[in-house]
Amino acid sequence: MGEKYQQLVTRLEDIQNLGKAAAVLGWDQQTYIPPASVEPRAHQLETLSRISHAMFVSEETARLLEDAAKEVEGADYDSNEASMIRVVSQDYEEQVKLPTEFVAEMSRTTTLAHEVWAKARANNDFKSFQGTLEKMFELTRQGAEYLGYPEHPYDALLNQYERGITTAQVKKIFDDHKPELVELIHAVGKNEGRVSDDVLRQDFDVEKQRAFSTEVATAIGFDFNRGRLDVAVHPFCTNFGREDVRLTTRFNPKFLNPALFGTMHEAGHGMYEQGSGADLEYTPLSGGTSLGVHESQSRMWENIVGRSRGFWQWALPRAQAHFPEQLGSVDLETFYRAINKVKRSFIRVEADESTYNLHIMLRFELEIGLMDGSVKVADLPKEWNQRFEAYLGIVPPNDTLGVLQDVHWSAGLIGYFATYALGNLLSAQYYNKALEQHPTIPEEISEGKFDTLLGWLRENIHQHGRKYTSDELTRRVTGESIQSRDYLRYLTTKYSDVYSL
Amino acid sequence: MGEKYQQLVTRLEDIQNLGKAAAVLGWDQQTYIPPASVEPRAHQLETLSRISHAMFVSEETARLLEDAAKEVEGADYDSNEASMIRVVSQDYEEQVKLPTEFVAEMSRTTTLAHEVWAKARANNDFKSFQGTLEKMFELTRQGAEYLGYPEHPYDALLNQYERGITTAQVKKIFDDHKPELVELIHAVGKNEGRVSDDVLRQDFDVEKQRAFSTEVATAIGFDFNRGRLDVAVHPFCTNFGREDVRLTTRFNPKFLNPALFGTMHEAGHGMYEQGSGADLEYTPLSGGTSLGVHESQSRMWENIVGRSRGFWQWALPRAQAHFPEQLGSVDLETFYRAINKVKRSFIRVEADESTYNLHIMLRFELEIGLMDGSVKVADLPKEWNQRFEAYLGIVPPNDTLGVLQDVHWSAGLIGYFATYALGNLLSAQYYNKALEQHPTIPEEISEGKFDTLLGWLRENIHQHGRKYTSDELTRRVTGESIQSRDYLRYLTTKYSDVYSL
Repeated sequence: MGEKYQQLVTRLEDIQNLGKAAAVLGWDQQTYIPPASVEPRAHQLETLSRISHAMFVSEETARLLEDAAKEVEGADYDSNEASMIRVVSQDYEEQVKLPTEFVAEMSRTTTLAHEVWAKARANNDFKSFQGTLEKMFELTRQGAEYLGYPEHPYDALLNQYERGITTAQVKKIFDDHKPELVELIHAVGKNEGRVSDDVLRQDFDVEKQRAFSTEVATAIGFDFNRGRLDVAVHPFCTNFGREDVRLTTRFNPKFLNPALFGTMHEAGHGMYEQGSGADLEYTPLSGGTSLGVHESQSRMWENIVGRSRGFWQWALPRAQAHFPEQLGSVDLETFYRAINKVKRSFIRVEADESTYNLHIMLRFELEIGLMDGSVKVADLPKEWNQRFEAYLGIVPPNDTLGVLQDVHWSAGLIGYFATYALGNLLSAQYYNKALEQHPTIPEEISEGKFDTLLGWLRENIHQHGRKYTSDELTRRVTGESIQSRDYLRYLTTKYSDVYSL
Repeated sequence: MGEKYQQLVTRLEDIQNLGKAAAVLGWDQQTYIPPASVEPRAHQLETLSRISHAMFVSEETARLLEDAAKEVEGADYDSNEASMIRVVSQDYEEQVKLPTEFVAEMSRTTTLAHEVWAKARANNDFKSFQGTLEKMFELTRQGAEYLGYPEHPYDALLNQYERGITTAQVKKIFDDHKPELVELIHAVGKNEGRVSDDVLRQDFDVEKQRAFSTEVATAIGFDFNRGRLDVAVHPFCTNFGREDVRLTTRFNPKFLNPALFGTMHEAGHGMYEQGSGADLEYTPLSGGTSLGVHESQSRMWENIVGRSRGFWQWALPRAQAHFPEQLGSVDLETFYRAINKVKRSFIRVEADESTYNLHIMLRFELEIGLMDGSVKVADLPKEWNQRFEAYLGIVPPNDTLGVLQDVHWSAGLIGYFATYALGNLLSAQYYNKALEQHPTIPEEISEGKFDTLLGWLRENIHQHGRKYTSDELTRRVTGESIQSRDYLRYLTTKYSDVYSL
């Protein structure tokens, strides 16, 4: 490596470390912070974001980037060096457009907004959140203008989470599979009575849930030597490098699903981070490449693996050991159907696989409207409920179960939701490719062996970190761009079976 | 406030926030970090310390400090403005002597050394820690040379924790009360059998201990809305501002003392931080002024209050409600004597009040020897045990109970121990002054009312933050400098009573 390249790497490492420090403070805010400590935390995070942004967009970085680029000229596209210059240059081009004071204000606003939202949600009081939300969308629109966009301001937002994808492309992907999804849900809806999830809705001791969730996460490959599981009101996965990945979950003492499938979901994210190449650590190439690819990992482990019949061949006896009274007498088939029950419901994170993407499409449309002005923040509850009825046939009885349910907008994460749906599509697409190369995977899963699948993911996806964009990676892995064909086929096959359609 | 003063304050706020972020990372390292995550944490902390040190000792800070000093010229000594210039100038003069790379290396070394020490202690293996410790003392000697000192390199270390005090002064204070301490312990030793602490050594459920400790900490005035209590192997108190103060403790399921008195101790530190003036928040004047004054607060609540007969008039019925089986039949007098049992023991943090300062004097002498080269790191186990026998008449059976017991040296906290003994002396000195002005305090304590004492501490000590040095503060509060008279009288009176001497 050349001298300038090495200096660039050193500088970027400091910036990475500031980001990781901010992530620790963010994790603490969601898990352990005392009630009165949020405002000082906002100040601390604002300082970290201001300093790291200023360091990154400084002329010093620009100069090093330029000089280092010359040093590595001609390096292989796949090499760490060429990838570093390519990816960091794009990061730089984006970030330099944002004034540091704007970044600091965004940081401060989101830290404080979280508390306003949490209270509004708890009190079912949209009005108390409206002003904050208006400010958040105002800042976001301003950010989009700073960043620039090809057609729609929403393009600028999508690009932050899924580099290179446009609003029009996402819209097309959604339109491609919405009709069939609606049709499937309709068909299932007519046979709702065929599946019951009563077995999952009993008293489940929280400590035993924790033990079982931890056992499952460990079995599928999450390394607790390099990570933890804590409790958060709004579960998430964060990391401070591949050696320190923090999962969170929440426990419902009367329903097995949230903690169990939530932990598998977050462990899917976590294993992606733990699998990021050791040679990329401390560089901007470390970690997941996009939120869509990230979500492909979490949804694959939560759903394609975690809600498969084979997985429960192995896991049910283990669940029964933790909960002999509740699950001792249930048979595999009943349990398998229960965890795959389709139910049109209000809360996205509790939605089944078939209705999930409709929850996303609704948010996607609202966000676009909020960005181009065709939807007003004040009208959100009404707009939300109208769409909800149109897509899912039910109307949220209150805003807590409606427009106030998600943490994202208060956190400034606008343009983020779409990646959940993209992740669902990618999960099936990647999994099918893994199967094609390793047809024994389903059989192994039914024996509690997950290393062939995890090894395949490590090799084809995790180790590359941010070297490739989502689309580059998907083409490398599957030979084509993202498509909804595989996911639709997966859903149709599964639900035809579960509901005997 | 002038323009330059305001700019100075803003700049210092960023530096404060970087320090607070580092404190969050440090807290996490001691409480929740996964085993394999220590090395990346060392990198993160190194980055934070390097950036904040560089920001603080920059020419920009020097210039602002100079210009701001002119703006506030003539301001009252006690004013925030004059205090800010005075204290920050001293901070600057010290810190600017340390090269930023030295500060970064110190940070990295201490983060990693903690794990080496923890393993060595667990395995009773001094040899495995020796090299790390040699490096630590080498770095510390280097640091003392950078900082400069009036007579002895150890002066430079003391000054970091207790600004202005010298090795010779501490030595004199120690020499002043060592003979009487030894005599007292001797007198008590001849009557050891008169007091039993069996009642404290039973099975105490950890969750109930947590509940009782929390109840007591809340009652004496620790605000859990602005703080937490967690578990750490080596209990400590840290803070990220007056609104976020984190206590830690450890639970022994067979001994009531460590968690209970440990929590009162850390709550004493915590209340000092929570009581720091709101107008000083986000400035370098916030927080405790010195470790000695800090320790005066923790030891006052742990011992002068927490081990008093009056306190247990109020607290014993509460303890009995948590532990009816274990404590239901014990009378106040037996309990009071039990918690004040004197026992020559190996572990400093478990030492009773009379032997505690001897544990400190031993460390003080060793540190001085290590700094001036008269003691070698390799000889520490031997040197430790020899002195231990001379002072306390017993010899540690292994290094885990001897030279490896404390976290401090691995953390680079050399020169720190003396402040514990100074804190003991100050605790009696301050408490006597409070009594002089509010003679009803003991009676109030026996009724579970702690606000007169806490209010007095808030007004006379806490609110001033770092405005005054330890000596300035002690003179303001008590009319004289630190002395051992009050503490010796307190001990003699108490133990004459408890042991019927």
